[in-house]
Amino acid sequence: MSHHVAVIGAGLIGRAWAIVFARAGFEVALYDISPDALAKAGESIEAAAADLAAAGLVADTAFTTCIRREPDLAAALAGVDYVQECGPETLTAKQALFAELERAVTPDTILGSSTSGILASDFAAKLEHPERCLVAHPVNPPYLIPLVELVPAPATSAAVVERVRALMADAGQVPITVRREISGFVLNRLQGALLNEAMRLVGGGYVSAADLDDTVKHGLGQRWSFMGPLETIDLNAPGGIADYATRYGPLYAGMAETQAEAPDWGAAAMAELERARRELLAESELAARQEWRDRRLMALAVHKRDMQNIDPTG
Amino acid sequence: MSHHVAVIGAGLIGRAWAIVFARAGFEVALYDISPDALAKAGESIEAAAADLAAAGLVADTAFTTCIRREPDLAAALAGVDYVQECGPETLTAKQALFAELERAVTPDTILGSSTSGILASDFAAKLEHPERCLVAHPVNPPYLIPLVELVPAPATSAAVVERVRALMADAGQVPITVRREISGFVLNRLQGALLNEAMRLVGGGYVSAADLDDTVKHGLGQRWSFMGPLETIDLNAPGGIADYATRYGPLYAGMAETQAEAPDWGAAAMAELERARRELLAESELAARQEWRDRRLMALAVHKRDMQNIDPTG
Repeated sequence: MSHHVAVIGAGLIGRAWAIVFARAGFEVALYDISPDALAKAGESIEAAAADLAAAGLVADTAFTTCIRREPDLAAALAGVDYVQECGPETLTAKQALFAELERAVTPDTILGSSTSGILASDFAAKLEHPERCLVAHPVNPPYLIPLVELVPAPATSAAVVERVRALMADAGQVPITVRREISGFVLNRLQGALLNEAMRLVGGGYVSAADLDDTVKHGLGQRWSFMGPLETIDLNAPGGIADYATRYGPLYAGMAETQAEAPDWGAAAMAELERARRELLAESELAARQEWRDRRLMALAVHKRDMQNIDPTG
Repeated sequence: MSHHVAVIGAGLIGRAWAIVFARAGFEVALYDISPDALAKAGESIEAAAADLAAAGLVADTAFTTCIRREPDLAAALAGVDYVQECGPETLTAKQALFAELERAVTPDTILGSSTSGILASDFAAKLEHPERCLVAHPVNPPYLIPLVELVPAPATSAAVVERVRALMADAGQVPITVRREISGFVLNRLQGALLNEAMRLVGGGYVSAADLDDTVKHGLGQRWSFMGPLETIDLNAPGGIADYATRYGPLYAGMAETQAEAPDWGAAAMAELERARRELLAESELAARQEWRDRRLMALAVHKRDMQNIDPTG
């Protein structure tokens, strides 16, 4: 099903959302408070679209014609069924922006925020219709990594969550629902748990930064790129996940006790880690490596699409 | 460089190691205390080799001729420079087996154990030459997932660790060194940190088991399949990892405080999780899904090899 959506904010995330929605055939109005940012957005979007076409992820770049850059907020919001907010990442900015959005749209228009850390309870509490507000947190860039976390506030209506799940699926994304608000949502809490242990292990002298990264990219990350951690352990014991828990649960529970302390994220420890990383990758090579990462993400997206075509149950 | 190695134990892990070493052109003696297990091992090895050839990961199955199944322990150990022990996973069994191995080999033969949980300090302490013993812990199956954790005891000589790192690299694996012994080594500590948080989130009603798995397989796991978690954050802030830590370190440190409690791995919680998993995958489908997993791992190995050929710095 197609949709008519507005993306508010033409920064990195806003432009990426515009690509996601337009690629799926949605009509997209892209707005930014800065006419200059809006003018420049066209070029970045064309460049990203050309990359996607070159990688074989889209047939051509014609989909970008579904993106209308709109310098007038009221015009951008006219007639849309969904708004993806990508404004500045502060509570006061979000509160002000959502109040402005609410005044301009009909009551059944859904308002989703791209925030990675601010709860809908906080930015939508004082609105007239908080029931149509929620967080829809993407992973960067969402046109290559499809996961979207939907985080409703207690005031958000269940029907709104279901409508956004359906809209995101129509857009080709993979929505998940965070049923109760929690700091970091699900993705960053899982990443944080692993990063905190990584910091303990590297900081404690158990392993080098390079070897720690190898452990994930040549070990754990293989299965996790096509199966979740729960399916992984479900398939790793003859009788499934409960059998696995009987065998290894006590080990992991015991480990939790030794992973309870917050690791050292302080300046001295981080300077040491920065030194280790700069030995592996010079500062002058960061930008080229980010381009390499994006090419690898595109190639992986092609690989996963091909696998999915062979075996849709995957 | 080629090597002459012995693999002791022809179970799942022993057979997989034999494939790894033979594929790299090593001469492999495969021993098992059970002549029956040894006899049957040939068929499984041929089947796995055929799968690898069908996936394009080896040219043909001729490499299995480098595997000599040897029912006599002394004959298996004669003239080898490295022994990969794959016996029963108990301390007393390992202690007895290593004492037996030590009596049969020359003092400069290195003895590595596949154990996932027993420390070399414990199984090698009473040997005459503990300096040539260490853990070399694979991920299953090692011919598809190349990461190997080398875990020396304080008594292990540094030269032995370096020799095994070189041997594993010659075998086409990716060795990492765990510099100080720690329960769970590095890989399972990272997996455990993530699993423990997964159990807190699912057990606490924040997210369904299916959505949690989607968060990893359609989100976090993408980058982690070709970059480690430290490189990931190094590339996620304009100024590199120290810049990232300044921006997000306090968030993760705060998260650690709410992730300090051991989650519930008890029978009731696991029965609930088992129920959730069986809704997604019936018990009768477990075996077919394990085969699917192995096909996906093979396809991913091909993908990663092709990427590496395009850009060897990856």
